[in-house]
Amino acid sequence: MKKTVLIGPSSFAQIDYKPILKLRERGFEVVTNPFGRKITKKEIIKLLDKNVIGLIAGLEILDNEVLTSSSLKVISRVGSGISNIDTVSLKKNNIKLYSIPEGPVTSVAELTVGMIISLFKKNIHMNELMHQSKWNRMIGNEIKNKNILIIGYGRIGKKVANILSALEANILIVDPHINKDAIPENFKLLDLEVALSIADLITIHVSGEECLIGKKEFDKMKKGTIVCNVSRGGVISENDLIEALKKEIISAAWIDTFVEEPYQGEMSKFKQIILTPHIGSYTVECRINMEKIAVENLLKEL
Amino acid sequence: MKKTVLIGPSSFAQIDYKPILKLRERGFEVVTNPFGRKITKKEIIKLLDKNVIGLIAGLEILDNEVLTSSSLKVISRVGSGISNIDTVSLKKNNIKLYSIPEGPVTSVAELTVGMIISLFKKNIHMNELMHQSKWNRMIGNEIKNKNILIIGYGRIGKKVANILSALEANILIVDPHINKDAIPENFKLLDLEVALSIADLITIHVSGEECLIGKKEFDKMKKGTIVCNVSRGGVISENDLIEALKKEIISAAWIDTFVEEPYQGEMSKFKQIILTPHIGSYTVECRINMEKIAVENLLKEL
Repeated sequence: MKKTVLIGPSSFAQIDYKPILKLRERGFEVVTNPFGRKITKKEIIKLLDKNVIGLIAGLEILDNEVLTSSSLKVISRVGSGISNIDTVSLKKNNIKLYSIPEGPVTSVAELTVGMIISLFKKNIHMNELMHQSKWNRMIGNEIKNKNILIIGYGRIGKKVANILSALEANILIVDPHINKDAIPENFKLLDLEVALSIADLITIHVSGEECLIGKKEFDKMKKGTIVCNVSRGGVISENDLIEALKKEIISAAWIDTFVEEPYQGEMSKFKQIILTPHIGSYTVECRINMEKIAVENLLKEL
Repeated sequence: MKKTVLIGPSSFAQIDYKPILKLRERGFEVVTNPFGRKITKKEIIKLLDKNVIGLIAGLEILDNEVLTSSSLKVISRVGSGISNIDTVSLKKNNIKLYSIPEGPVTSVAELTVGMIISLFKKNIHMNELMHQSKWNRMIGNEIKNKNILIIGYGRIGKKVANILSALEANILIVDPHINKDAIPENFKLLDLEVALSIADLITIHVSGEECLIGKKEFDKMKKGTIVCNVSRGGVISENDLIEALKKEIISAAWIDTFVEEPYQGEMSKFKQIILTPHIGSYTVECRINMEKIAVENLLKEL
């Protein structure tokens, strides 16, 4: 039986087929995602048969059950985060893991800044009306001098902060893993509680999947606060966000990642919530670059 | 008869009534725009009766006919551009003119950068689909390393260039009024013809109303170019833009200003053209600041 590599992300090699050719040239059978969406746990257990020794991974659930029942030797993430992978089980099952921490930084940070500007300017709503021949001017706000709270000052948070700094926003940082010396003098490192109460906009760039913003946190915010989540679904509680919107604590939001994808939930009913289908790192440049590196990383071990 | 000040812009003092109170306190009768839209030439001639000695001006047509038939002593623009005003006629009629060159810079530059990011990322289309519970991922592009051509390196063009520079774009400048020493080393000052042929995105920040981008210019662009116009309606030919879009020379556009406003024309039929109702400087911060200064400028002369 031929040694096999399974490709998790449904969009893999859509722009550039070379990474898959490279795997074939090196003698591997390549199995791609047959579903056109994220593979479920049940499905991946089936797909990871005993011939599959390498996995190019997206955000599939790779817990102890999945990993122990597989014959995997190496997992290579096309992305930076590894919160979908049980790292203890990796060691137990002697599976090597690679990820690409720098890969999505530029694409995600650019999109975040663009969405922040759009949320303050309300242009998305006005564009929709203009296409119905309705001239309805809604007044916006400047980003300059606004308090922008960045939760998670890792690679992406740092890049977002730097661009927003060129936009003359006041940068507030919440990150328990860094100290004051790690940030520029004009940024403020704050406790979550204080930061929530003064932020005009909050954007989250953490690597975990834990809920950070729920009812308790919304209740500490100013009336009219804006929130953005491009990190992981569930980091902002969906139900509590909708409640906060109804109470006018939240005036607008942008959500790019969801607990269940494709997302078809309640938030779709609210115009004030701008929704994108997990496109943070979905750019031509980022995909080509990350897919190439992911295959190179995989081949280091096989 | 009481000396009167006419207020042109329909949105004047909507956020903060203080500037109008100030005029009244100083003994002036204040006449506001009764139409809720831009005043036409015919209408302004009527409104500028012999008691009106001061005009807080938006983008109303103030040509020789209008000015000569008026009793105006001073015109104070709530904005920077004065291309709607016949400056020769001002002198002839001994009318003083004030404008606010710095006023709209921050708001317009921020919006421009936000729209540029949105055009590359296609998020506006995906948001619309998500609100119909359709998960349709469209691949975007990074702004980093893209050739962004800025036509007009005045206050706004400069600010846009600086922010895009923080986004690591390649900045190309076309401006016959500046020389190489006036721009940073990493920007490129080019002839229009050369610049059009290599630009990925073109954004216009000139003060005139002359058409700069028509069929001849579109024909020099790369397939898939993006164009933005937040300066004045007509600077990009509307018909030629639609033709260029049909020929796929243009992949997307953003238009904020129109020859006739409120705009209800042909461009509304094209999803690839993002439209906003002349909101470049329409932010709370910018309006409050400019309205205050416009009244102060007017009172200097009355």
